[in-house]
Amino acid sequence: MSAPLVDAARLWDRHMSLARIGATPEGGVRRLAFDAAEVAAHRLLADWALARGFALALDPAGNLFVRREGTDPAAAPVVSGSHLDSQPSGGRFDGVFGVLCAFEAMETAEDRGLVTRRPLECVVWANEEGSRFRPGCMGSAVQAGEMTLAEALATVGDDGATYGEGLDALRAALPEAAPAPLDRPFAALLEAHIEQGPLLEAGGELIGVVDRVQGHRRLDISVVGREDHSGGAPLSLRKDAFVDAIEVCRGLAELCRDETDVLRFTFGRFVVSPNAVSVVPGRVDMVLDLRHPDQEELVRLGDLVHAKAQGLARLCEVTVADSSWHAPVAFTPAIREALSRSAAARGFAQREIYSGGGHDARWFPGRCPTGMLFIPCENGVSHHPAENVDPAHAAAGAQVIADVMLELAGEG
Amino acid sequence: MSAPLVDAARLWDRHMSLARIGATPEGGVRRLAFDAAEVAAHRLLADWALARGFALALDPAGNLFVRREGTDPAAAPVVSGSHLDSQPSGGRFDGVFGVLCAFEAMETAEDRGLVTRRPLECVVWANEEGSRFRPGCMGSAVQAGEMTLAEALATVGDDGATYGEGLDALRAALPEAAPAPLDRPFAALLEAHIEQGPLLEAGGELIGVVDRVQGHRRLDISVVGREDHSGGAPLSLRKDAFVDAIEVCRGLAELCRDETDVLRFTFGRFVVSPNAVSVVPGRVDMVLDLRHPDQEELVRLGDLVHAKAQGLARLCEVTVADSSWHAPVAFTPAIREALSRSAAARGFAQREIYSGGGHDARWFPGRCPTGMLFIPCENGVSHHPAENVDPAHAAAGAQVIADVMLELAGEG
Repeated sequence: MSAPLVDAARLWDRHMSLARIGATPEGGVRRLAFDAAEVAAHRLLADWALARGFALALDPAGNLFVRREGTDPAAAPVVSGSHLDSQPSGGRFDGVFGVLCAFEAMETAEDRGLVTRRPLECVVWANEEGSRFRPGCMGSAVQAGEMTLAEALATVGDDGATYGEGLDALRAALPEAAPAPLDRPFAALLEAHIEQGPLLEAGGELIGVVDRVQGHRRLDISVVGREDHSGGAPLSLRKDAFVDAIEVCRGLAELCRDETDVLRFTFGRFVVSPNAVSVVPGRVDMVLDLRHPDQEELVRLGDLVHAKAQGLARLCEVTVADSSWHAPVAFTPAIREALSRSAAARGFAQREIYSGGGHDARWFPGRCPTGMLFIPCENGVSHHPAENVDPAHAAAGAQVIADVMLELAGEG
Repeated sequence: MSAPLVDAARLWDRHMSLARIGATPEGGVRRLAFDAAEVAAHRLLADWALARGFALALDPAGNLFVRREGTDPAAAPVVSGSHLDSQPSGGRFDGVFGVLCAFEAMETAEDRGLVTRRPLECVVWANEEGSRFRPGCMGSAVQAGEMTLAEALATVGDDGATYGEGLDALRAALPEAAPAPLDRPFAALLEAHIEQGPLLEAGGELIGVVDRVQGHRRLDISVVGREDHSGGAPLSLRKDAFVDAIEVCRGLAELCRDETDVLRFTFGRFVVSPNAVSVVPGRVDMVLDLRHPDQEELVRLGDLVHAKAQGLARLCEVTVADSSWHAPVAFTPAIREALSRSAAARGFAQREIYSGGGHDARWFPGRCPTGMLFIPCENGVSHHPAENVDPAHAAAGAQVIADVMLELAGEG
């Protein structure tokens, strides 16, 4: 099936409409999972869907499926989408772009009266960002059987409400949505996303065909010394947790140095206690975030951190604990080839790329053919109000998603 | 006048009684300026004072004077004291010890029916710690004319209330207190305090005769880079504010290295933004606290920080701004000699020492004869629930204060 051209103007307008929901003064959005803004974003998408005659279904974990029927209603659907929640001070495209690519593909099919054998579905995964309920990618994990529903529903968010209570608010706002089960069979699962990195922009490519999600190992590191008065305690008698913590950070960065620039090594969280100007810090708690596409390398480096951290401190006690681990995930070759063929046929410059961040699609390669595509984002910036994309790039990404969804759905 | 022995048991009991007001589960106290606990501590002291027939007076900045009359009511009083407020998680002796030394001196005089020419006064300075209203040492600064009353009253605390509103609560709790003016003439001003450092304990001395308060220069340093996704951004393309900030910290510590161990160099406050595990830090704000007894050295080192900080960063912008400056303050030789004579006569091991922290007494050497004494504190710890002193050391300090107050007040 040769797919028609998507409507670039409509696609962009829909992005701008969603960007107004939870808009922040800085130009970004704040939509935490199941909060009023995120529920309103779902509602707007539902209104658009109902206006096109698409059906709505909500699974017990809060994942929303917008469905355009095929000629074989028993056939497993071709599913694509992403999420509508954001970081606390997030941007307008992270997640939204993937949802709207799938929705645009379905609208384009509808506009042209295309009949497919398999149903087409646009999915909105619940709580991808993990900004309110941790961990992220929770809705998709439950749908894919990687987390139990009970565990998700009982998760307590930063505001004291449970995931289950949040989900009640979403369900109440979507009375037209039929129940959908967990563990649904998908013919294929696609996810389009902004790159959240600078490589496509730097290389001038419009499409990144994602070969894998890199692995991810997170370590909690604590450095414990002794509080003292900053005016009273001579330096020779201090056990300053800050001084030792920065030696630990520098030493670990040196140990993990990677001349190939593939390793991602970040201290994003670093908390000094008591963090008062006239008190020598007694404690530092920090999180080391390691990401690498090669599982063995990630194991080696994380183990090196465990083995070497204490030796980098001069006086303080250092403890290291693994706090999360995700092995690298490879996407299905047939899907990668289909995405690449479409990009080539459309004349879009492309490259193979791996995903630095985690995405909902990561749970599915063992369950169904799964793939992801990236488009460039301005200066590689995401998780920030300045997050931006070129409308032409958004249209290119949606075109490839439309092409591949329709190819996989088959003629009806 | 040869002073009689103070009542060591009463002195300790009074400490323990005050320690119950605002007591924390960790064994310390939390009494922020003018909060309910700090007002209650004032009230308890007032009750003790009224029971002894002492008079109360409150000045417009909230400083409380407890007065035992002399035979010459026109003579300027001999004043000694400290404060009753604490750090947010403070200890039982910081401030309280200085107040109770003066009060014990007055009670001892009363017990023995000693008649002095000058009045004796115990002062409780308002808002010494600066934990609720910044800066600290505010009440004494206003009394000494170093800060205007209007500025103090308008200062907004962390909870949104003004200093003036806080003071209203104190005034309401002390209806017996007559008004006292600002800029009062003092015959002398003494302050006893725990050392807040380890030197007396290490040397086995009971009394530190303070020759000066070291100078204090505080610099705000900001490092501004760019936020990025910790999974998406290659290290080669990052502008990581945390990575540069720790280089700035290390480099400045190296530049300011002092083999004599006199300089106090502390990064007590270090705040990473946005401080999220999956975001490369875009900004770090930190405070460098420098203290040195020699003014020229403090000027030289602070200026070195201004000159060199930017050069220590690899990619980020660094800004440095002076946020506070206190020149070293020398105490009056005649008072230091009187304190030293008393300690020698009583057989207390003593040493000359300088004060690492700021204290209310620092405002007064240009106005009246002024001096301070220190006693040891356990392990040098203060500003912490573990803060502790030996009852015998407390009695020794109170004895020296009593000796010198009575000597300076003269026989009536």
